[in-house]
Amino acid sequence: MNISVRAAVAGDGHILHAMVRELALNHGHAADFTAVPADYERFLADPQAINGAIIAFWRGEAAGCAIWQRSYSTYRGRETLYLEDLSVLPGFRRRGLGRELMRAVARLALFRDCAAVSWLMMSWNEEARRLYSAAGAEIEEGNCMCRLSGNALERLGS
Amino acid sequence: MNISVRAAVAGDGHILHAMVRELALNHGHAADFTAVPADYERFLADPQAINGAIIAFWRGEAAGCAIWQRSYSTYRGRETLYLEDLSVLPGFRRRGLGRELMRAVARLALFRDCAAVSWLMMSWNEEARRLYSAAGAEIEEGNCMCRLSGNALERLGS
Repeated sequence: MNISVRAAVAGDGHILHAMVRELALNHGHAADFTAVPADYERFLADPQAINGAIIAFWRGEAAGCAIWQRSYSTYRGRETLYLEDLSVLPGFRRRGLGRELMRAVARLALFRDCAAVSWLMMSWNEEARRLYSAAGAEIEEGNCMCRLSGNALERLGS
Repeated sequence: MNISVRAAVAGDGHILHAMVRELALNHGHAADFTAVPADYERFLADPQAINGAIIAFWRGEAAGCAIWQRSYSTYRGRETLYLEDLSVLPGFRRRGLGRELMRAVARLALFRDCAAVSWLMMSWNEEARRLYSAAGAEIEEGNCMCRLSGNALERLGS
């Protein structure tokens, strides 16, 4: 068994932080990445947290992670699981870690009685598209993510 | 003052349900809409709910709503507010209700010390694009929403 997965626990913040940072750089979002490991420790230590993570290991070495959060579908009237990040470190790709993380997320969703797992993918990411299609996901094209933050948020909310 | 807004409370489930149903039909998602008003009453009555809603009234008549949920940005290491639905009933459009709902959502986000408000828009929705651009939102193109549910979820998670 080369691959193992487990839920992230208190103390894993630096592992998750390194992996999400890698993802942010890879997506060209370095400037937006301001989280520090202690931010992640806060939700890992909070039994009421709306989010959590799963870490995948290759021969015992941390190699990837999935960070999820509770979500809710108003169409279904039930909770869902939202997958915020799925990251496999570059040196560990094409070994099945992404697939194992997706399986672990699906198991968690079923255990939590969620109606669905949902996540966003950039339309240019063909490698992700192959992984998610193979997992049986429906992929909806033509979404735009909208974000209001900083001065624009202050202005609108004041 | 023709427009007023307030937080949804227990008993408002049928109002929200009618509005989200209208939105589902308008987006061609009638088959996916299985929620009943009692589903919404459950989160309205739950002090630990991860979601909530704001209702907008035109001269006292319920005319639109915003349904939000707690979310988390792993890039920022802070909570955000995710806007799941923004609906203005067809007979009440172009009167400023959408803008007032966005303002109320922004106020709530600031009150909750959220780093941002985020939401999804279909790229074809030019009316929504105008509203959100005017509100100061950044709009990111090229996202795909992926969803795993039903048999595909059972299969992957078993």
